[in-house]
Amino acid sequence: MNYSEYKNYMSKIADVGHSIAVLSWDKEVYMPSGSSRFRSQQVATLSGIAHEMMTRSSFGGSLKKLMTDESLSPKEKNNVSLTLKEYNKATQFSEEFVIKRSMLTSEAFHAWVKAKEENNWLTYAPALEKLVDLKREEAKLLGNADHPYDNMLDIYEPGMTVKKLDQIFIDVRERLLPLLEKVRNLPRVDDSFLFLDYDENKQWDYGIDVLKAIGYNFSMGRQDKSAHPFTTSFSPEDVRVTTRLKKDDFSYMLWSTIHEGGHALYEQGLPTSEYGLPSGSYMSLGIHESQSRLWENNVGRDFDFWQHQFTVLQDIFPSQLGKVSFVDFMKAINKIEPNLIRTEADELHYHFHVMIRYEIEKKLIGGEIEVKDLKDVWNDMYEEYLGLRPKTDEEGILQDIHWSHGSFGYFPTYSLGSFYAAQFFEQAQNDIYRLNEKIERGDTTELLSWLRQNIHEVGHSMEAEELCNKVTGSGLQLDSFINYIEKKFTRMYEEY
Amino acid sequence: MNYSEYKNYMSKIADVGHSIAVLSWDKEVYMPSGSSRFRSQQVATLSGIAHEMMTRSSFGGSLKKLMTDESLSPKEKNNVSLTLKEYNKATQFSEEFVIKRSMLTSEAFHAWVKAKEENNWLTYAPALEKLVDLKREEAKLLGNADHPYDNMLDIYEPGMTVKKLDQIFIDVRERLLPLLEKVRNLPRVDDSFLFLDYDENKQWDYGIDVLKAIGYNFSMGRQDKSAHPFTTSFSPEDVRVTTRLKKDDFSYMLWSTIHEGGHALYEQGLPTSEYGLPSGSYMSLGIHESQSRLWENNVGRDFDFWQHQFTVLQDIFPSQLGKVSFVDFMKAINKIEPNLIRTEADELHYHFHVMIRYEIEKKLIGGEIEVKDLKDVWNDMYEEYLGLRPKTDEEGILQDIHWSHGSFGYFPTYSLGSFYAAQFFEQAQNDIYRLNEKIERGDTTELLSWLRQNIHEVGHSMEAEELCNKVTGSGLQLDSFINYIEKKFTRMYEEY
Repeated sequence: MNYSEYKNYMSKIADVGHSIAVLSWDKEVYMPSGSSRFRSQQVATLSGIAHEMMTRSSFGGSLKKLMTDESLSPKEKNNVSLTLKEYNKATQFSEEFVIKRSMLTSEAFHAWVKAKEENNWLTYAPALEKLVDLKREEAKLLGNADHPYDNMLDIYEPGMTVKKLDQIFIDVRERLLPLLEKVRNLPRVDDSFLFLDYDENKQWDYGIDVLKAIGYNFSMGRQDKSAHPFTTSFSPEDVRVTTRLKKDDFSYMLWSTIHEGGHALYEQGLPTSEYGLPSGSYMSLGIHESQSRLWENNVGRDFDFWQHQFTVLQDIFPSQLGKVSFVDFMKAINKIEPNLIRTEADELHYHFHVMIRYEIEKKLIGGEIEVKDLKDVWNDMYEEYLGLRPKTDEEGILQDIHWSHGSFGYFPTYSLGSFYAAQFFEQAQNDIYRLNEKIERGDTTELLSWLRQNIHEVGHSMEAEELCNKVTGSGLQLDSFINYIEKKFTRMYEEY
Repeated sequence: MNYSEYKNYMSKIADVGHSIAVLSWDKEVYMPSGSSRFRSQQVATLSGIAHEMMTRSSFGGSLKKLMTDESLSPKEKNNVSLTLKEYNKATQFSEEFVIKRSMLTSEAFHAWVKAKEENNWLTYAPALEKLVDLKREEAKLLGNADHPYDNMLDIYEPGMTVKKLDQIFIDVRERLLPLLEKVRNLPRVDDSFLFLDYDENKQWDYGIDVLKAIGYNFSMGRQDKSAHPFTTSFSPEDVRVTTRLKKDDFSYMLWSTIHEGGHALYEQGLPTSEYGLPSGSYMSLGIHESQSRLWENNVGRDFDFWQHQFTVLQDIFPSQLGKVSFVDFMKAINKIEPNLIRTEADELHYHFHVMIRYEIEKKLIGGEIEVKDLKDVWNDMYEEYLGLRPKTDEEGILQDIHWSHGSFGYFPTYSLGSFYAAQFFEQAQNDIYRLNEKIERGDTTELLSWLRQNIHEVGHSMEAEELCNKVTGSGLQLDSFINYIEKKFTRMYEEY
């Protein structure tokens, strides 16, 4: 197998993977309620085919041989190397182990769904316990690392470690807690005008307009409705987003739309010539999330963007927003208030939600705590960091789907995304002449070009830390995020 | 491979096939305009996988061995036997031949699209000539038959032959021409009220109501819009239809909706326990078409159905239909008038359109006429049988897509569908106590049950001729169709 045959083979595996994505998209968006049985079977069959193609021993042999090919460019070599890493991971486990994992995951997921319905943690705990035991085994099997949880982190954020994350979350505590203290003393924000009657069709149309405004390409994408918003890619030439609407909650639609739009801009910007290869795929979940959060928060919750958009929005909803002042609107969409639910958290408290999950996962996989103690640990940490104690399991330990899927190591990428986003956006402001003024005029073209060139087109040709250094001149740090927050709040409460 | 392993393997092949169907449905219905490049590639990859699974020589060996398994039931044996037939067909051709066919088909299709745009037959003819040469070769390779075209017919209508079809079309000429002569002397029908302004949303809602009324299950199906209406099945538990709308042409939507609804009822009625097997699939295209035409015409253009539906429709469109009498409505929706376009033909002339194509295909594949003479042959036959001569290639020889896909032998199934439909419906009227009165009351439940039991649930466990004999007591004949037409016209012009 030469490089071009390898590339062709990878594109066939990608074709199968993207077909699964189409079937899954349809399932969430248009599939009739009674049709799930055969759809699940069809997805399982395609997954089996993709897995077989990826783990075929002849393919592994070809990859090892290709690694010694001196004629490959560094990018090509990196592709083969990352594919070999994936091959090794996929072939690491015995068939028995894979079947057991699939069974325990399915069991945990169904237990979680039932537990949510019953609002009862004890319905979930036994299945989760078995799954955690297996995940501890998996972490060990995945190789030597300073901490077994490192192997879990590496699945979603290649190169990320407990050592690095511990430092990041120490920073989060040290630097965000004083910030929160300051915010707590600010006058109470009235955001009630965001919860008036907003016509859903007008909301929908405005969401589409905003997606267009930030550069989402509708001739190679579309937006539909689904219960939980998501972005999915069938190729860089077909990237779809979904959103949701609530008549009496304008925020419910808009920032979720911009968030998914950010993910979609990344996928639409991946190089089509590298289809199916690491160099044609996203770099890590943290980098993916940096793109959604940059547009959602650094652009979509800051002054410049709304300098332009607020009057547009007032024209669409005059009776709801006509008499609201610009700064009151800014305060409302940036309201800081602790709550119990991660997905409803504000920009600051969000990272404490993530930190709690990170600390728990690390100790769970490391064997320092046990599933039976999880609820108490959870509730204690919420009380300590957010000053709130869940009254029910539903608003506490049962709120996330992730663990029931066996996704340990995923949560930290949410926070990483915010911190990368702030760092990238700060750099873009340095690199692009008068970017803020351009955004104020509603023009984000140059920002998107900058992201395309510096991040999107890179695909997965290097690791996140290397990219961060290359683009911003330093590794991941919290300064940019803190600066961004401080600047925004200063502007809201002092300059206006 | 025992029977249960065979069944499991077949269901995996079906999973891949149905995944292709999902990708193709999306392409017609929701895919953005700029996304076709990778989608085509993905469909090609899945098709390649399905083909490889079907033609794997170890699978062929297993099938041959299973054929000798004495423990199989007749139905099981029939499944294996039909699968082996398909295997033999799929492995009949050299790889070189398959590649050549794929290339020539693609070339012919693009030439046809271009020729349509240019309204110029000569743009299409050279590519079609090469494709026809190949099809002649294919027909010969497919085995010995009385007529090489028999092998083409067998692809779409297993067991159908030139000998049988020649007799059928002799009957069509002998019995339909006098009928047409009679209709020609009837007073001219005014159908102008079908072409008033019909609100598209109301049309859409009414179409949905009609689909529900005939028993289409929306919890395992859905209707969307597409340029050309079609039905597609992802399993009997997910069968989808599409329709189209024209503001100033009510018929454009309605009978196409009922037609696809009939196809969909068949697919929704196939036995789920036989998923992926011949016994879980439709019997032939003729039988498939019999189900769409039965609902579209024998039900949907006849008196009983409209006894109930006409007042409903008048209430929805009072200004368009409020003053139209029932019999005038019936005459309008049954207007008989020769035209040049098959897809716009009425119930009687339709079969002359098909006959012309049948005669041409038979002689083309048999080597009696050449592609270069096709346009003249076409135009002469239209003049002879419909009294109209196409003025442009677009309204003549270029109107159908079928030949450009290499689909020779497909057209006759359209007429077979109408004749089977009339025969089945006549039998249902005999078997179901006061069926007409039930339909008059808007209740088609028993008709659907009868079709389920006698046709749908049979799947492809026997051939069409055998089914027809079993259900109606005789093989395919034209009497039922002629009776149905005569009765309807007598009622319209003599009884009212």
